[in-house]
Amino acid sequence: MNRVAIIGTGLIGTSIGLALKRAKLQDVEIVGHDREPEHAAKAKKLGAVDRTEWNLIRTVERAGLIILAVPVGAVKEVLEVIAPHLPEGAILTDTASTKAQVLRWAEELLPDSVHFVGGHPMAGKETSGPDAADAELFKDAVYCLVPSVKASERAVDTVVNLVGLLGAEPYFVDATEHDSFVAAVSHLPIVISSALVASTTRSPAWREMAKLAATAYRDLTRLASGNPIMNRDIMLTNRESIIRWVDIFIEELKRYRALIAEGGQALGEEFKQTHDARERWLRSPRTVGVEPGPRVPGMGESMMSFLFGERLARASQEALRPPKPDENGKKSK
Amino acid sequence: MNRVAIIGTGLIGTSIGLALKRAKLQDVEIVGHDREPEHAAKAKKLGAVDRTEWNLIRTVERAGLIILAVPVGAVKEVLEVIAPHLPEGAILTDTASTKAQVLRWAEELLPDSVHFVGGHPMAGKETSGPDAADAELFKDAVYCLVPSVKASERAVDTVVNLVGLLGAEPYFVDATEHDSFVAAVSHLPIVISSALVASTTRSPAWREMAKLAATAYRDLTRLASGNPIMNRDIMLTNRESIIRWVDIFIEELKRYRALIAEGGQALGEEFKQTHDARERWLRSPRTVGVEPGPRVPGMGESMMSFLFGERLARASQEALRPPKPDENGKKSK
Repeated sequence: MNRVAIIGTGLIGTSIGLALKRAKLQDVEIVGHDREPEHAAKAKKLGAVDRTEWNLIRTVERAGLIILAVPVGAVKEVLEVIAPHLPEGAILTDTASTKAQVLRWAEELLPDSVHFVGGHPMAGKETSGPDAADAELFKDAVYCLVPSVKASERAVDTVVNLVGLLGAEPYFVDATEHDSFVAAVSHLPIVISSALVASTTRSPAWREMAKLAATAYRDLTRLASGNPIMNRDIMLTNRESIIRWVDIFIEELKRYRALIAEGGQALGEEFKQTHDARERWLRSPRTVGVEPGPRVPGMGESMMSFLFGERLARASQEALRPPKPDENGKKSK
Repeated sequence: MNRVAIIGTGLIGTSIGLALKRAKLQDVEIVGHDREPEHAAKAKKLGAVDRTEWNLIRTVERAGLIILAVPVGAVKEVLEVIAPHLPEGAILTDTASTKAQVLRWAEELLPDSVHFVGGHPMAGKETSGPDAADAELFKDAVYCLVPSVKASERAVDTVVNLVGLLGAEPYFVDATEHDSFVAAVSHLPIVISSALVASTTRSPAWREMAKLAATAYRDLTRLASGNPIMNRDIMLTNRESIIRWVDIFIEELKRYRALIAEGGQALGEEFKQTHDARERWLRSPRTVGVEPGPRVPGMGESMMSFLFGERLARASQEALRPPKPDENGKKSK
């Protein structure tokens, strides 16, 4: 019996459990733990884990694969607690929103016998908790993978298999690059959403203004409904990149302010350019297009994983969709 | 036969037409005109108008109610063309995104015999054109009404009836207030969306970054996909209010930058407060709750409208839902 431990059965952890259970893996037991016992119980009730374990240390006992699905602010503490108790050769992956700091913690706290492969699924919702979980949450999402330098090829293959079972696309990226990219496309948006709520709701005219707030306001403020503690911890573990992007964005707003004040042709041209840039992004293939290569072996080779063995590998091969034409009729590249 | 003229059969004009036709008004003919003849033809094909008219001046001939559903940038020109040809006593309403400038144009250009009631439905999509039209577009939306000081009570009643037929909630507001409110909740978001696209897509790392852009980025940039000319014209007709709100927002971002740099408890508290403020807004009643009053007569009295007459008034009464408990079980207030 191979054991998979999911630490943290919130939205992400429970969704991973649901997707793994749906793959009907044989000889694999999924154990779930959450700091909040009712979250673990809920994950069990939803069928995302085979059993729950209230003791964090016992959760990782005899586990071959450990999925750390806790907010980035809790990663260090969990690593400190479990590090001395991790089985030799265990493969550890996480799902936290920032990667450089997490990789530093893994390097600092984990024994050499444990293989750490950092992960970050580019999927989520502003709602949290196991109730919001969905086996389809990761379908076609980009799933960033940042292996530690000491992680074995087998460990990387196993996590690639896992990502495949979730229906996501593995994307290998350097930790610093990852953090800089997500600062721009995920974390700056959180700052913007929250700052927009702050500027409007604290206005003396908010009561009246609120009546006119419609879909534009709802969409732009959506991220302000995210978990406040998670949002804070994301800021704190990716501080430099986020501050750099806030600065870039403020400069951009000043440029817009000048264009609006001028009121000439340049403003229309600017809106035209951003309109076209966004349409190009929307039309671009939704996949990162990972080609088989040294770090991403074909599924046939990844059978080496002691953890999943032949059966999972086959399930994994079936779960991984073959390259298919995208909506423009071109092959994903 | 009472005639309703819809000038501009894009998303808004065609949606209004569809909603009116659905009400099965008798003895009412809806004439549609668009600068782009294929848009008018499309509106006819969709059943949003009874007939199309290629000549703008002939469109308003013998019309009792004229609905100007053109972008704010085209309002002045259309008013200049139609003003000398408007039937005496005609009621004119518009749907443009800003109101102070539109009211000034109406005051300046329209004869005293014409009744202008400015309007602005707080509903829309980033897609445009008659193909995106939907009879349900205005359902439960707030519909701002800004009557000109010279508009008769009958004219106001007629436009309130129209709003009721669209399934929207009339909300009377001063033009300057309207423009300041929408600057905060609709127009600043357009600037933010476009500036976010500009800062990211012009980054040298965009090709890689784009792969990690997911729902957060998609939602926050949605408004950048709006019509560039419309966006420009909104900025130009509501310049002062928008610039004021861009300034407020930049100050707010600087405050967030400082909170992130500090990295203390205050940042978590800030996210908590905006989280709660947004949740309160989401839970608040979605209606503006207009009570019958001097400016919003009961439907029985609005029969005075020569335009719609008894039949429409009855249809209108049926279309206007009675006050009903909102999702929290409280009555809309």
